[in-house]
Amino acid sequence: MAVVGVIGGGQLARMMIPAAVALGIEIRVLAEAEGSSARLAATEVGDYRDAATVLAFAAGCDAITFDHEHVPQEVLRALEAEGVAVRPGPDALLYAQDKLLMRERLGSLGVAMPDWARIETAEQLGAFLADHGGRAVVKTARGGYDGKGVRMVDDAHDADDWLAEGAVLVEELVVFQRELAQLVARRPSGEMRAWPLVETVQRGGVCAEVIAPAPHAGAATVRAAEQLAFTVAEGLGVTGVLAVELFEAADGRLLVNELAMRPHNSGHFSIDGSTTSQFAQHLRAVLDWPLGDTAPVAPVSVMINVFGGLPEKSIRTALAHQPAVAVHAYGKDARPGRKAGHVTAIGTELDDTAYRARAAAACFDA
Amino acid sequence: MAVVGVIGGGQLARMMIPAAVALGIEIRVLAEAEGSSARLAATEVGDYRDAATVLAFAAGCDAITFDHEHVPQEVLRALEAEGVAVRPGPDALLYAQDKLLMRERLGSLGVAMPDWARIETAEQLGAFLADHGGRAVVKTARGGYDGKGVRMVDDAHDADDWLAEGAVLVEELVVFQRELAQLVARRPSGEMRAWPLVETVQRGGVCAEVIAPAPHAGAATVRAAEQLAFTVAEGLGVTGVLAVELFEAADGRLLVNELAMRPHNSGHFSIDGSTTSQFAQHLRAVLDWPLGDTAPVAPVSVMINVFGGLPEKSIRTALAHQPAVAVHAYGKDARPGRKAGHVTAIGTELDDTAYRARAAAACFDA
Repeated sequence: MAVVGVIGGGQLARMMIPAAVALGIEIRVLAEAEGSSARLAATEVGDYRDAATVLAFAAGCDAITFDHEHVPQEVLRALEAEGVAVRPGPDALLYAQDKLLMRERLGSLGVAMPDWARIETAEQLGAFLADHGGRAVVKTARGGYDGKGVRMVDDAHDADDWLAEGAVLVEELVVFQRELAQLVARRPSGEMRAWPLVETVQRGGVCAEVIAPAPHAGAATVRAAEQLAFTVAEGLGVTGVLAVELFEAADGRLLVNELAMRPHNSGHFSIDGSTTSQFAQHLRAVLDWPLGDTAPVAPVSVMINVFGGLPEKSIRTALAHQPAVAVHAYGKDARPGRKAGHVTAIGTELDDTAYRARAAAACFDA
Repeated sequence: MAVVGVIGGGQLARMMIPAAVALGIEIRVLAEAEGSSARLAATEVGDYRDAATVLAFAAGCDAITFDHEHVPQEVLRALEAEGVAVRPGPDALLYAQDKLLMRERLGSLGVAMPDWARIETAEQLGAFLADHGGRAVVKTARGGYDGKGVRMVDDAHDADDWLAEGAVLVEELVVFQRELAQLVARRPSGEMRAWPLVETVQRGGVCAEVIAPAPHAGAATVRAAEQLAFTVAEGLGVTGVLAVELFEAADGRLLVNELAMRPHNSGHFSIDGSTTSQFAQHLRAVLDWPLGDTAPVAPVSVMINVFGGLPEKSIRTALAHQPAVAVHAYGKDARPGRKAGHVTAIGTELDDTAYRARAAAACFDA
């Protein structure tokens, strides 16, 4: 039986469990702590920054993959040196870990992006602001996610605290119509598959809602997004799932916002809405197994994140009011603002499907 | 978090795991042995016939349910005496455990069945044969499944070995057009839901293939099957999933063949083909949670059992050849004739869907 080791015990690892069970894959999780979201498959609790811990965990695994992108390069390279199949590998993950390197690399691949610069001083930031209408977005090169490590600035000194730590990324504030995401999977032997382009709705810098497929996306946009994601997956040598977060600019151009080299919030709809879910596909891809069909099982899927917690009483209410909506709970203790679960409705018509998903999600409002 | 304890570590317990993960339910399995199909959730290994073992296992569970129907009545009643929610309860399970009692009880509910009799002697069997064209089916009252404990007879002495052990059930050999199955779920507070009527194709007394919905079933047949299953579920006080195996007689009447009070092979298609799978529904039902929508996600589903084993090489072949077919492996060691997994195709048209399912299943032929 194939064995996949997952570093990190969050909800992404948790949602790989059902896929592993179906495919007869043994899944082992190295969790950060007891009681993690993926505790059912946690065979070990330990520090993913410690090479010895991770090497011991990897023994007997056919492939190592990730719940997050924070495993240090030294640890990843130590695994590879021992002959462990690390997927995605350190050379690819580097671009998910460091946004400055990512921008440079995407530039060399010819991928469209917001204007950006590497800045090391307030003067450089001031110059960028002057060239871009007086406002911009500053991002720390490393460690940011879900709105953290990202800041809107309109003054040359607005990033002084971060600049004291080193170089940061500055990007133009893109005037976009909406945000989209293109999910693809790639296996080591090269096969790639794309899911339909989706629209993502962010609130407070965090994904709130995903509509699949993206409404009113023209064939040219759909093709362009898919080609772009394939270019990135191939160019960066990604194995497993790659999510490319995109801005659809006012003029219709697609600009790459962020990359994630793992199953991604924008693909949660695929559990209920796709022939092959992103979690099943990720496991297949990291094992270099043949990839699955990504066709939708219904014309429309709407996924809505639930923040805070999913008390049992609210789950029962949601199931009672919306018996056709799938509720996914991540088994986490309640905490304000925490991604605690999601709901997905599938259907034939966007308005009705979105209504049902929102009605189910509303059962979790405090 | 709700906790469901499952007695038995076979594939039915295994397939409850993904449903539990999605719903945020903690699932604990009392397995017969190490390395069971449901080992990922096995919190204990022990003998389900031992009341002390089962009582200890049940501590902390909100409901106890089953992978099989073999837990002795004394053990079930000991659980109930301790206030454990046993679902289905002993009064219902009795009819799944003893085919003679089942026939008597169904008779009192007015449900159509093959002609049957309780026989204790070869003379009685001879008399039944004489009245029913010289051939009949003899079944042991207890312990039969998948063709075991079932025998075609044409001589009064053909069941002497079983009669030496006690009374057996004899049934007329029904001339049927085909076999069907009606799956329903019922929760303690009374809510019931039915899946579409399915056709089951048996080979050697074992389910080989399931087509959902049953092709060419008229509205009257569909309604009759649903009503019949609701009558049985309510009449017997079943909680959780109930499968009613049916003969469609030459004259179109539906006759009850067997009952199963748990997720059932005839409902495996629902994992991929239904809005709510039988495994999710079973967990919801045994916790007395609101039941889910049972509408199909595609016009046709075809499920085919895989026997023997699912070597990784064959899984990869099946996934490569049929990228839209779902492969389900039960994590069992290979053994001739053993139910080792299944494949499900969903689609819009029966011929194509069945072709794809069969092509995937054929990848596992030795």
